[in-house]
Amino acid sequence: MTFVPAIADQRFVLDHVVGLDEIARHERFAAASADTVEAVLEGIGAFAEGEWAPLAIAGDRVGARWTPEGVVMPDGFRAAYQAYVEGGWGTIGVDQRWGGQGLPFVVQAAVLETLGTANMGFALAPILTVGAIEALAHHGTPEQQATYLPRLASGEWTGTMNLTEPQAGSDVGALRTTATPIEKEGGGDGTYLISGTKIFISFGDHDLADNIVHLVLARTPDAPAGTRGISLFLVPKVRLDGTPNDVRAVSIEHKLGLHASPTCVLSFGDNGDCVGELIGPEFGGMRAMFTMMNNARLNVGVQGVQVAEGATQKAAAYARERVQGARDGAPAAIVEHADVRRMLLRMKAQTMAARALVYYACGQVDRATLGDAKARERLEMMTPLAKAHATDLGNEVASLGVQVHGGMGYVEETGAAQFFRDARITPIYEGTNGIQAADLVGRKLSLANGGAFADLIADLRRDARHPALARLVDACEAVGRRLQGASADDRQAASYPFLTMLSVASCGWLMERQAAVPAADAVKRAACAFYLDQIVPEALGLEAAASASAEVLYALPAGAF
Amino acid sequence: MTFVPAIADQRFVLDHVVGLDEIARHERFAAASADTVEAVLEGIGAFAEGEWAPLAIAGDRVGARWTPEGVVMPDGFRAAYQAYVEGGWGTIGVDQRWGGQGLPFVVQAAVLETLGTANMGFALAPILTVGAIEALAHHGTPEQQATYLPRLASGEWTGTMNLTEPQAGSDVGALRTTATPIEKEGGGDGTYLISGTKIFISFGDHDLADNIVHLVLARTPDAPAGTRGISLFLVPKVRLDGTPNDVRAVSIEHKLGLHASPTCVLSFGDNGDCVGELIGPEFGGMRAMFTMMNNARLNVGVQGVQVAEGATQKAAAYARERVQGARDGAPAAIVEHADVRRMLLRMKAQTMAARALVYYACGQVDRATLGDAKARERLEMMTPLAKAHATDLGNEVASLGVQVHGGMGYVEETGAAQFFRDARITPIYEGTNGIQAADLVGRKLSLANGGAFADLIADLRRDARHPALARLVDACEAVGRRLQGASADDRQAASYPFLTMLSVASCGWLMERQAAVPAADAVKRAACAFYLDQIVPEALGLEAAASASAEVLYALPAGAF
Repeated sequence: MTFVPAIADQRFVLDHVVGLDEIARHERFAAASADTVEAVLEGIGAFAEGEWAPLAIAGDRVGARWTPEGVVMPDGFRAAYQAYVEGGWGTIGVDQRWGGQGLPFVVQAAVLETLGTANMGFALAPILTVGAIEALAHHGTPEQQATYLPRLASGEWTGTMNLTEPQAGSDVGALRTTATPIEKEGGGDGTYLISGTKIFISFGDHDLADNIVHLVLARTPDAPAGTRGISLFLVPKVRLDGTPNDVRAVSIEHKLGLHASPTCVLSFGDNGDCVGELIGPEFGGMRAMFTMMNNARLNVGVQGVQVAEGATQKAAAYARERVQGARDGAPAAIVEHADVRRMLLRMKAQTMAARALVYYACGQVDRATLGDAKARERLEMMTPLAKAHATDLGNEVASLGVQVHGGMGYVEETGAAQFFRDARITPIYEGTNGIQAADLVGRKLSLANGGAFADLIADLRRDARHPALARLVDACEAVGRRLQGASADDRQAASYPFLTMLSVASCGWLMERQAAVPAADAVKRAACAFYLDQIVPEALGLEAAASASAEVLYALPAGAF
Repeated sequence: MTFVPAIADQRFVLDHVVGLDEIARHERFAAASADTVEAVLEGIGAFAEGEWAPLAIAGDRVGARWTPEGVVMPDGFRAAYQAYVEGGWGTIGVDQRWGGQGLPFVVQAAVLETLGTANMGFALAPILTVGAIEALAHHGTPEQQATYLPRLASGEWTGTMNLTEPQAGSDVGALRTTATPIEKEGGGDGTYLISGTKIFISFGDHDLADNIVHLVLARTPDAPAGTRGISLFLVPKVRLDGTPNDVRAVSIEHKLGLHASPTCVLSFGDNGDCVGELIGPEFGGMRAMFTMMNNARLNVGVQGVQVAEGATQKAAAYARERVQGARDGAPAAIVEHADVRRMLLRMKAQTMAARALVYYACGQVDRATLGDAKARERLEMMTPLAKAHATDLGNEVASLGVQVHGGMGYVEETGAAQFFRDARITPIYEGTNGIQAADLVGRKLSLANGGAFADLIADLRRDARHPALARLVDACEAVGRRLQGASADDRQAASYPFLTMLSVASCGWLMERQAAVPAADAVKRAACAFYLDQIVPEALGLEAAASASAEVLYALPAGAF
């Protein structure tokens, strides 16, 4: 393993992009002193390097295994997870009321980044637990919170999100899992019998923890069709009285990557005895789901940073060691060749851009928590960008990492290919990147009557110094305004190129700000210059696609594709 | 398997991009009548669909296996290979003198495309055999040709290319394998003892054929250092007297993809008894290697087409079947959603562009064979573009194919991920795409004192009608002229973005020509319109990167990466 925690850049982005000191001035986040944050970044770095990184290869090669008794993680994972629990690393971002440390969401994101750079598949367990915590913290009753949150915060128990069914993927409203109130003498007690099958459930079963808290979307009897009839239920693997609940993993997927993360088919109520309790109001399932989902989307953006950072470190280490060809008449490591340097500097720049974009969005979560309404708008605006663009960048960087390795990159033992395989799920789950683009041109462009978009453009324009960035901001505004008045088909047709343009403009903005900080070192300055001079202009090349109508797409019948 | 041979588009490109009728007017290629070519395309299509496509999944899952006795292919491969030999599919492009059919190189490329779309790993065996045939046809003695070519042409024996050693990858000149003349009474008989280890040898061992003809780069005693001291040797696995030669596969690689293609470590002369014979003059190894390599580069470009075609077919079939969400109030297959159509039309357009680019270059091989000196220049100009850009497109399209499948794309059983994994080697082998870019800005821009580049630009400019294409041609000329006078570092720094710009300009040129053909159907016209309106402008976004100097790349010490 070449893994080194990226503490210096994390710290730099927290200070100069997120403005963590400002956030920490508020009572709510008083725990986030500079010293504490430094200690957290250093601590999780040492922990991830010592405990989780050494298991990354076994996680891939051995992987999680299904058995009739349940899913078994590879050797060493249970102990490494226990060390995570004992280190208190699950408590970082959780409110003190529930045993958490009450640190900002963005600090928790940095912790998750480090864990996932060390071992991406493994780190999905904490990410999903964070989603379950968010849902309960926002929508649970005080009793549910008191019962479940301390155990989820500590990591003693883990959480899952159960949305997808075979016929209901991006179209969540098509789900069929049912929840029937359990009638008892004197009326119901608020419990339900859950019945149905969910697929693609990450860490849906495992042997890391004593219990798993499944959050399950289902329909109550006579619920209206579509998303309006969906409610959220909490279904523990083991009931509070210690008896097993009627839920089991019937298989796990054989996936391209992320083998340390068991992706389960979960069957609820095979024996008619799966008990769950309602979270939030009946039919409030979509709202509760978005509470989980929105922050989970940011954490998938964090996964883009994870893989970009890991792939860059590995490729750079290889390029410094591998001697091939000559420079100035002497044998040279390939890092000395210009095209290899181009790839490496691009990888560094894209990694920094992804981190800045995602942390910036995560910082808005904290500002919104502090009651800043503008920050909530900005957060909503940035969520699809952070999820989609950071994961696109993770994939691009992982592919460049393979390329830098040459033939060795194609040999699994090298490890470059693992990043490439692991990364490929991130543009798909938690809402495909196409769904993110649809969210951007649909809901987000019209947010606050277009005010959220106008505010972002105004911020970008006010600060932009680099001529290409200024042109890109103008192009984003022109395209965005046109899309606000366009037909649904035209909006969708342009959505993905527009998402990329606006993401690059946002990253360019954040990179330019970083380059201007006196503390920026030579690497940061070179990466920012490369980003502004070479990557920002590429996004200008997308203006034509983002300006095209849907006409060419519908010129053919479906059968012609 | 969703595989259907792409006969209609192959035929269209042969007719309207390559101008096969013009080539077939010459005596040398008189065999290539329209009827014959049609029969070949139909025949290989039916063969590939019936015999090779059904083995694609087993090729990936089971893969080639190493045993102490040699490499064993999965069940069914030997019979399917025998059917290939018996069908005469190996003889397509080989001269009639050696039992071939004497059809043009471009027709052979179409045959290889179809085989590889059906089963990409397997089709590497014929591709490598073609390389060995080219080397022997150009550099062998009449006796060597008579001995080896008929058996290679029939496929009774297969061929390999042995260049790489652990310390000699892109830097071929660093190789250490030795060839020592065997002294006999009355002097040497032209045979040599070969000793050394070669790595990354595709189909370096297998059980498909009775013999394997290894073409091996090695150094004779007292050879000068570097590439000038390299000679090419023919080393059969089994000697002509039927005794085994002293060469064996000591291991095969565990690769990201292409599992049906055994990538061998070959050890020559472990027992001091590996006999080879010189091909061409001593120290003529690099020249002979480039004979193999240049055409092999085009055939790797063909692999880009293979994977793009296969991934597009699979994604389109899935998108037509998978119902998710609604359109006009009714449940709809995802092919009806605009962003999915955008992905599918992009995949179709990029596949057609890759095929047009690669076939166009292959057609120049045939024109050069007919003595057309301008065609030889054009071929040299187009070879790096065809190899690098078509393989980049294969990777882009395979990744989009995964994305269209959503979560199912990440599950190996679906098959979309196999294209994604298989494709990833193509930008690496036969000269990485970075090496192709270096070749373009180094040797090719200065070919004929810059005349080859000027001729290409003149052709592009004369025909370009679409304003974005005209702008891109202007940009390519400006960048190319600047690079002709630039320092080596600056040329290399700009090489990759420039290669992409010039490739897209060339593809745009060929797509515009196709759209103008009256026989173009609606799919072709939509794909060409999408290409010109949306993909060509993207390449304009690369002008800044292609115009940048190397300064930013060398602003950091190697240790900073």
